[in-house]
Amino acid sequence: MARLLGLTSAALLAVGITAQTSTYVNPAVPTHTPISGDYTGPLRPQVHYSPPQGFMNDPNGMFVDADGTWHIYYQYNPTGVVAGNQHWGHATSKDLYHWVNQPIALFPPEERVYVFSGSAVVDVNNTSGFFPDQDNGVVAIFTLARYYEDGSGGPQTQNIAYSRDGGYTFEYYAANPVIDSTSPQFRDPKVIWYEDHWVAVVAYSQEFVVGIFTSPDLKTWEFASNFTRHGLLGAQYECPNLVKMPVRDADGAVLGETYVMAVSIQPGAPLGGSVTEYFLGDFNGTHFTPSDAVTRLTDFAKDNYAAQFFYGVPDGQNQVNLGWASNWQYTQKVPTGNLEGWRSAMTAPRVNYITEAPRIGLVMVDEIYDISPILDSKLKTSTCGGGDGTVALDYSSVESGALYIEVNVTNINTTLLTDYSTLNISFASPASGEILQSGFYFGGDTPFFVNRGGIKGFDNVFFTDKFSVSDVYSSGSSDTLASWSVKAVIDRSIFEVFVDRGIHAGTVVFYPSQPLTTLNLASRLPEGARVSVDIWSLKSAWAEYEDEQGVVYGNVTSSGNSTSRRSMVYESNFSV
Amino acid sequence: MARLLGLTSAALLAVGITAQTSTYVNPAVPTHTPISGDYTGPLRPQVHYSPPQGFMNDPNGMFVDADGTWHIYYQYNPTGVVAGNQHWGHATSKDLYHWVNQPIALFPPEERVYVFSGSAVVDVNNTSGFFPDQDNGVVAIFTLARYYEDGSGGPQTQNIAYSRDGGYTFEYYAANPVIDSTSPQFRDPKVIWYEDHWVAVVAYSQEFVVGIFTSPDLKTWEFASNFTRHGLLGAQYECPNLVKMPVRDADGAVLGETYVMAVSIQPGAPLGGSVTEYFLGDFNGTHFTPSDAVTRLTDFAKDNYAAQFFYGVPDGQNQVNLGWASNWQYTQKVPTGNLEGWRSAMTAPRVNYITEAPRIGLVMVDEIYDISPILDSKLKTSTCGGGDGTVALDYSSVESGALYIEVNVTNINTTLLTDYSTLNISFASPASGEILQSGFYFGGDTPFFVNRGGIKGFDNVFFTDKFSVSDVYSSGSSDTLASWSVKAVIDRSIFEVFVDRGIHAGTVVFYPSQPLTTLNLASRLPEGARVSVDIWSLKSAWAEYEDEQGVVYGNVTSSGNSTSRRSMVYESNFSV
Repeated sequence: MARLLGLTSAALLAVGITAQTSTYVNPAVPTHTPISGDYTGPLRPQVHYSPPQGFMNDPNGMFVDADGTWHIYYQYNPTGVVAGNQHWGHATSKDLYHWVNQPIALFPPEERVYVFSGSAVVDVNNTSGFFPDQDNGVVAIFTLARYYEDGSGGPQTQNIAYSRDGGYTFEYYAANPVIDSTSPQFRDPKVIWYEDHWVAVVAYSQEFVVGIFTSPDLKTWEFASNFTRHGLLGAQYECPNLVKMPVRDADGAVLGETYVMAVSIQPGAPLGGSVTEYFLGDFNGTHFTPSDAVTRLTDFAKDNYAAQFFYGVPDGQNQVNLGWASNWQYTQKVPTGNLEGWRSAMTAPRVNYITEAPRIGLVMVDEIYDISPILDSKLKTSTCGGGDGTVALDYSSVESGALYIEVNVTNINTTLLTDYSTLNISFASPASGEILQSGFYFGGDTPFFVNRGGIKGFDNVFFTDKFSVSDVYSSGSSDTLASWSVKAVIDRSIFEVFVDRGIHAGTVVFYPSQPLTTLNLASRLPEGARVSVDIWSLKSAWAEYEDEQGVVYGNVTSSGNSTSRRSMVYESNFSV
Repeated sequence: MARLLGLTSAALLAVGITAQTSTYVNPAVPTHTPISGDYTGPLRPQVHYSPPQGFMNDPNGMFVDADGTWHIYYQYNPTGVVAGNQHWGHATSKDLYHWVNQPIALFPPEERVYVFSGSAVVDVNNTSGFFPDQDNGVVAIFTLARYYEDGSGGPQTQNIAYSRDGGYTFEYYAANPVIDSTSPQFRDPKVIWYEDHWVAVVAYSQEFVVGIFTSPDLKTWEFASNFTRHGLLGAQYECPNLVKMPVRDADGAVLGETYVMAVSIQPGAPLGGSVTEYFLGDFNGTHFTPSDAVTRLTDFAKDNYAAQFFYGVPDGQNQVNLGWASNWQYTQKVPTGNLEGWRSAMTAPRVNYITEAPRIGLVMVDEIYDISPILDSKLKTSTCGGGDGTVALDYSSVESGALYIEVNVTNINTTLLTDYSTLNISFASPASGEILQSGFYFGGDTPFFVNRGGIKGFDNVFFTDKFSVSDVYSSGSSDTLASWSVKAVIDRSIFEVFVDRGIHAGTVVFYPSQPLTTLNLASRLPEGARVSVDIWSLKSAWAEYEDEQGVVYGNVTSSGNSTSRRSMVYESNFSV
C-alpha cells in the first residue's frame, strides 16, 4: 500500500460512514456481490485488468489455487476515483487475461481503519488451524492502517483473515493483530513458505528497512532479521517481495536458483514518484544476503509499481507477477476517472526468471505471460531480408483496439551499424494527429525508447513524456552477427514492451483524445539483416462478459445471497 | 571520457590530418594561442563555462593552484560541433565564474590516437622528478585511446604529461604509457594524494569495475584493488572520482570526514543516457570500502555528467566540483551547434560536503559555489507573511538574461499542509509563449519539479521534458514548524536548482526559440508561513572580455609566440 504521505483527510473521509458490530461495512459499498462495470470506454484496456468502477492501486494477495485459478486482490476505493477508503477488491482468472470480477473480499474492520496491502497463501497443511477439513484454505495477511479524526496516521499493524471458500469470502482472525506495532509506517506483508515455516517480509517504510519475520502457523510471528538501506531509497520503501526463481541460460536450461528481494520505492523514484527495484541473493529461512551491491530496476518507464509475485507457483518453475500500471505522481488525475469512472489498470502478467544478460550480468527477466488466449487474427506477417523495410497497418477495424506485436531481427552485421541503424514502431490517430513512438537504435548507445509526448489527452507536470533503456543485445567483438527482438502490447491506454526476451521491460500509460488506429514500423539496418514482424489483433477479454448494455457484472452467482443482477448495478457519486 | 560506443569513424576522421614527429597536431587546430569565441548568442550561457567554439564534453584535469587559480581542462573537439578528435581544452578562473580561455593544453600524440578524460595534480614535492626547481609542477594523467582505420577501438592506456609553467603547456612523458592495457574499455584516471602516495581510480568501463592503483611518483603504478559492480550499472562505468570530504551537521559544524566514490554511468541511466551516482565509504590508501549499499544520484535531472572534483582543495575543506551539463542522448543534436557554433556548457561550480538529510540519512550536498562575483542588481526582494503571494518580474532589460533566485520559506505549519500547498517558479517568453516551470509541493510526496516541455526550440525522442525529486524537508512529527529553501540560476539555456541547502540538485538545459524574459513566482501555503524571495540579475562573466565585435579572444598574451589577435580568429568548417 502506498500513498500514505498523500492521503488527505478529505480523501479518506469523503464517504459518510457508520460503524457495525463485527466487520465494518460502509453502507455505500455492496457486499456479497461484485460491483459491475462498463468496460467499453475508449480508454479502457481490453486485455488488462482494471476495476469495474472506482480507484485501484497495488495488487494484493495474489495466489494461484490448486485448480489453476489465479486470484488477484487489489487496493480498492469502491466509492471514488481517488485513493482512500481501502478495501480489497478481488478478481479471478484461468489464463491471467480473462478476469471475472468477484465480490469485494476484505472490508475495513472499523471506521477509519483501512485494509492496506498484503498477500495471501494457501494453507494446504492447515498450519493455521483455521481449516480442519480442507486443503484449500486461504489466509490473507495485510496491514490495517488507522487514521485519526484529524486525518493523521495512527499505527499500522499486520493482521490476518481466513477464507474457507477458496479466497472468495474472508473472516477476520479474532486475535489480530498478528504483528503489532506503534509505527504509522509499517506495512505491506508478503508471505512465502520456506521449507518448514512461513516467512513474511514487511516494510518499515520510512526507515528503509524490510523486516523479515517467521511463523509456524501464520498467527504467531517472530522477528528474524532486517534487510536495510539497500539500493535507491527514494523517500519510502514499500511492498517488499521475497521470492525464489530459477536461473536459466539463454536457451532456457536451468542452471540453479536464486532469491529476489524486490522493493518498491515511493515517492522518490529516479524518474519521479514510484518505481520497483530488486536485489539478488540468498535466503536461509531467516536472513536475506544479497549476492552483490547492484541496484536493478524492474521497468525502464514510470508505470509499473508494487508488483507482486503469485503465491503457489510450483517450486522450480518460473515465477509470475503483475504490477500496478500507474504512478502516484499522477494516478489520481488521469482522465479515465472523469471520463469513464475508473482509474488504474494492472500490467499484463509477466513470467520471471534470472538470466545472464550480455555485459550487465544477472538480471530478472520480465517477459509477457503466454498471450495465446487473447490472440485474435494475425493482421500482418512481414519478413524483410534487406536492411530497410516498412510496415503500415490501419487497425481501426480491430474492435478491441488492442494489438500484439513481435519483431525479430537477426543476422545483424554489427560492424556495419551506425547511429542511424534503427527500428521504429509508432501508433497514431489520423483523426487527432496524436502519436505514440517507440523504437530501438542498434548502433551507439543502443537505447530502446518510448515517447508518449505526442499523445494529447492528458498532461501534468509529472507526466514525463520520454523513457529509454540501453539494451546491450550483443556483446563480444567476435559476435558480429547479432540478433535482437521486442514484444509489445498496445491496449487503448497502456503500452508494454519487452525488449530482448524481457531483459528490459517498459510500461507506459497514455491517454489519447482519439483512439490510435494506425501502426507504422520502419527498419533501417545494414544489408543482410533479416527483420520479421508479426502483428495480431487481440480479442477483448471483457467483451464476452458484457450484456447488451455493455455492462460487465462479474461473478454474481458464486457467492450467494445476491439479489438480481439489475438491482446490483452499482451507483455512486464519484468525487474527483 | 564518454561516448565510445557512439563514436563513429566518420566523426573521428572528419578532419584531414598529417603526422608530426613528437606531438601530433592537426594543422586545422591552432597551437599556442586560445581559440576565440563569440559568447553573445541568445543560447550562450553568460555565467557558465562553455567552449569558445566546437564541441566540449567531460571536464578534465581540474585543479586549483597555490595562487588560487582554478584550472579546468575539458574534452574538446576544436574542429567540429560533434564529438571526436579529442583534445584537452583549457580555461582558468579566479572565482569559478569568470573564465579565461587558454590555448589547448593537450593534443593527440599521433594520428587516430585521442586524448580522453583524466585528471591533474600539482606535484608540490616533485615526486615525479619532472620539477627539480619548482613546487608548482603539474602532472596530467589521462587516457590515450587508439582507433583503427576502420573506426574500431584499439587499446586504451593511461599516460602522463607534465607542465613546468603551471598547467598551460604540457610535455608528454617519454616512457608512456604509465598504466598499459590491451583493453579498449579502460579509461578516465582520476588521481589524488593519500598520506604518502598517489592513488588513481580508473574505470574498466564495460566490466563495471573501478580499478584502484597506487604510485610513489606518478610514473610507476601498482594495482591495489578493484571496486566492482556497485549501484546502478547502466551499460558502462565512466569517470570515477574518489575524494574525501567533511561530514557536517545542519549548522555546518564538522562531525568527521568520509570518502565519496562517484561513478558516472553512460549509457543506461534511469532517465536515459548519462548520470552520476556515488557511494560513501572508507579508504585506507589501497581499498575503498562502502559504508552501506545505498545508491545515491548527484542530480535529479538529466544534464550533469562526469563531474570532477578539483584537485588541491586543502584537507578538511569542502570539495568543489563541476560537471558536464549535457547528456549523450542528445548532446550532438542540440541547436547551439548549428545556430551558434558551440555545443555543451559546464554546470555552475558546486560546493560539496556530507550531511544528514531528514529521513534519508547521509547525502552529499551539491550547493552552488559563492555566486557573489557575478551578482549584479537585486531586482526584487519580497517577503510575504501570509500563505499566498506572487512575484512577477519582467527581466527583459537584464543584458545577460541570467538571474539568481533565493526563496526561503519558514514557519510552515506542517499540520495544515495539503496536496495543493505549492510554490511555483516559472520563466516565460511573452514573444513565443514558451515556459520553463519549476516548483515544490509541500504536502503529499514533496516533489520538486522542473518541466522544460513548454520550451520549443529543440526536441528529440530522448529530450525528456519533466524531472522531479522527493525532498523530505521536514521529518519528525514533533517538528510542526518547518522550513524549506531553494536556490536557482537561470542562464539563457541552462537552469540549475539547489533544493533545501543542496540536498538535491537538478541541472536542466533547455533551448528556447525566443529568450525567456519574465519570471512568475506564486506561493500557496498555510496561514503563518513566511516566504522570502530575493532575485538578482547576474553580470555576464564573458561580456567584459569581448571586443567591439563581441569576440572573446582568451589569454592571447600569456603563453607566448602568438601572432596578432586579429589573425588568430579561428575559422573552421563545422560539420554537424
